[in-house]
Amino acid sequence: MPRPLITLLTDFGSSDPYVGVMKGVIFDVCPDAVIVDLTHEVQPFEIAEGGFLLAQSWLHFPNGTVHLAVVDPGVGSRRRPVVVEAGGHFFVGPDNGLFSMVFAAALSNVRHVTASKYFRDPVSSTFHGRDIFAPVAAHLANGVTAAKFGRTITDYTRLDFFRPVRSAKRAWTGTVLHIDRFGNIVTNFLADEFRERMLEMRTGLQSVNRAAEYYADVPFGELFVVAGSSGFLEISVNQGSAARVLGVGLGAPLELRLR
Amino acid sequence: MPRPLITLLTDFGSSDPYVGVMKGVIFDVCPDAVIVDLTHEVQPFEIAEGGFLLAQSWLHFPNGTVHLAVVDPGVGSRRRPVVVEAGGHFFVGPDNGLFSMVFAAALSNVRHVTASKYFRDPVSSTFHGRDIFAPVAAHLANGVTAAKFGRTITDYTRLDFFRPVRSAKRAWTGTVLHIDRFGNIVTNFLADEFRERMLEMRTGLQSVNRAAEYYADVPFGELFVVAGSSGFLEISVNQGSAARVLGVGLGAPLELRLR
Amino acid sequence: MPRPLITLLTDFGSSDPYVGVMKGVIFDVCPDAVIVDLTHEVQPFEIAEGGFLLAQSWLHFPNGTVHLAVVDPGVGSRRRPVVVEAGGHFFVGPDNGLFSMVFAAALSNVRHVTASKYFRDPVSSTFHGRDIFAPVAAHLANGVTAAKFGRTITDYTRLDFFRPVRSAKRAWTGTVLHIDRFGNIVTNFLADEFRERMLEMRTGLQSVNRAAEYYADVPFGELFVVAGSSGFLEISVNQGSAARVLGVGLGAPLELRLR
Repeated sequence: MPRPLITLLTDFGSSDPYVGVMKGVIFDVCPDAVIVDLTHEVQPFEIAEGGFLLAQSWLHFPNGTVHLAVVDPGVGSRRRPVVVEAGGHFFVGPDNGLFSMVFAAALSNVRHVTASKYFRDPVSSTFHGRDIFAPVAAHLANGVTAAKFGRTITDYTRLDFFRPVRSAKRAWTGTVLHIDRFGNIVTNFLADEFRERMLEMRTGLQSVNRAAEYYADVPFGELFVVAGSSGFLEISVNQGSAARVLGVGLGAPLELRLR
Repeated sequence: MPRPLITLLTDFGSSDPYVGVMKGVIFDVCPDAVIVDLTHEVQPFEIAEGGFLLAQSWLHFPNGTVHLAVVDPGVGSRRRPVVVEAGGHFFVGPDNGLFSMVFAAALSNVRHVTASKYFRDPVSSTFHGRDIFAPVAAHLANGVTAAKFGRTITDYTRLDFFRPVRSAKRAWTGTVLHIDRFGNIVTNFLADEFRERMLEMRTGLQSVNRAAEYYADVPFGELFVVAGSSGFLEISVNQGSAARVLGVGLGAPLELRLR
Repeated sequence: MPRPLITLLTDFGSSDPYVGVMKGVIFDVCPDAVIVDLTHEVQPFEIAEGGFLLAQSWLHFPNGTVHLAVVDPGVGSRRRPVVVEAGGHFFVGPDNGLFSMVFAAALSNVRHVTASKYFRDPVSSTFHGRDIFAPVAAHLANGVTAAKFGRTITDYTRLDFFRPVRSAKRAWTGTVLHIDRFGNIVTNFLADEFRERMLEMRTGLQSVNRAAEYYADVPFGELFVVAGSSGFLEISVNQGSAARVLGVGLGAPLELRLR
């Protein structure tokens, strides 16, 4: 029987032992777990970026994987903890829109987690990752059925950060979902939908109108738009940082003009 | 039978394969080990920060876990390698005060590791993490008893970095133990001891006199003191970096004035 | 039977879920794998640094380990994927020189990977780590023999970044292979070959002529050359950053003058 898989995605960074402590709690409950870090470098409190990065990842894992995601500016307030079943996977985290792209991708059953017997005791006001989400994920990995954690809800939070908005007959306004380690700018324009029709991508006063299929096709240092491995259009520079060249950060507005 | 757990905490960072190499050595000796990274981002040579971060973590792991910690400015000098048994856990690392908070939390048996048959051969002068500490931790995880590694000592190094000092009738001097990824300033004032009596926390010319229970209770951008998940008082800014606002770094002095 | 070990080394960094996704693909193919991160902080596209860091690591792992390495500026172009057998270990990655130090250290059999039935379908143009290298490594870990992946080739890429060049009767020109987290400058001068004969190491207008055995032997803040745990000469400052003091970066030229 395969060992249960749990992935972790947070904005906790790597300079604190927060993630390690969550793993200690998980192994205490589920000693057989295999834990995979997706990333802990989500920009602090950036729910949209966390939701995007989770959406990039979960489908590449086997069915039955438990995805534990904590980007949680409202920790300690009344926002609800949830367990989501979708596409044969499980998701555990706060009900703040972090799972919006999961909801859009697969039929989802969302439960408000209220069964405090699965929590650590006492529950702190500042670290629900350790006290609520980690033990709930570990019990799920142990085979506790989702229904045990709480009742199904339908008024869970859905956000639209991954959908551009039409701004003119031949123009759409979008945003920067993520900037990767290489400085590639990941937009929220789906490649399949916009790639063929793109005339140019504008950010501030600058525009990019070259499209390419392979990084290696483009001269050194030149900006171009590419269908990234994310499925979204990305602005890149061959062997350079597009984010630095364009001076663009997370959440910046983008305008896509069509032919 | 559960697989043996080994945690790692170092100041090695993630840009070098030092930590990966230690894991290779561990798996070579103990193929069944499960290894958890606590953090490798301890500021270089900062024994107090390493000791604090370890103290935050170890109790959340199951009994029998081996905690391997390497913050070791004296590598290659005569400082001793030690194995510590405390509270049902094991600790392996240099005898330089790194385990001071463990000693304060639980009755500890400390051994000077001298049994070189458990070391890698040869032992380098610059990388005892790989050549001494990793194989010793792996043999412990394999079930070799602590007594096999060397004799109990009582003159091991204890440091007091986690204890504020009384400076006046109603004032205590403390320090910054750690700054977390969000810029929260972790002090060495125990929350249980000082929280109720705090009038203000001073750093340089600035003071903070607001206390709060939840991040979400505080207006955007305002400084406050909170009982952190660490058990110590922390200075925070709701959705901002207190360390940046106050210009405070690791080891900076703090004054706590009582009511 | 021990679980199969797979190490990962990339220039993907930790802010993206690229590495996590590769692990999802690996566990999907080989659920028993144990995965160890060597480092993901190779400077983007720096094949020489990646090759050096891999060379520092692989010998510390048990025989049979699969080392998956992706530093791949030519992704999407015609460079070949390869599987290398050397010294009882396996290596998977692009044929761009990344394995040059492996070839120099051990008799190597190199195969051009063409058996696309082991790839993910479809193969993207930008993420061969996920679509080709990860599943190939996982199938190797599952016991698929190397010969199944493609034919042996002899015209694979070998680079000489790890070999200094004689520039005068008593002088050699070398380079910076890596700068570690502490700011130590790792050169490509083998300690065994050059240590005894060194008069001084020059970089730009500055020179270092002190050699030491232990960090602790050297006064605070002073530059010195030491035989690092890498086997190469390293320029260090006791409890400081040599790279910052000397203003030296990756790939910078160094001159070693002999006695």
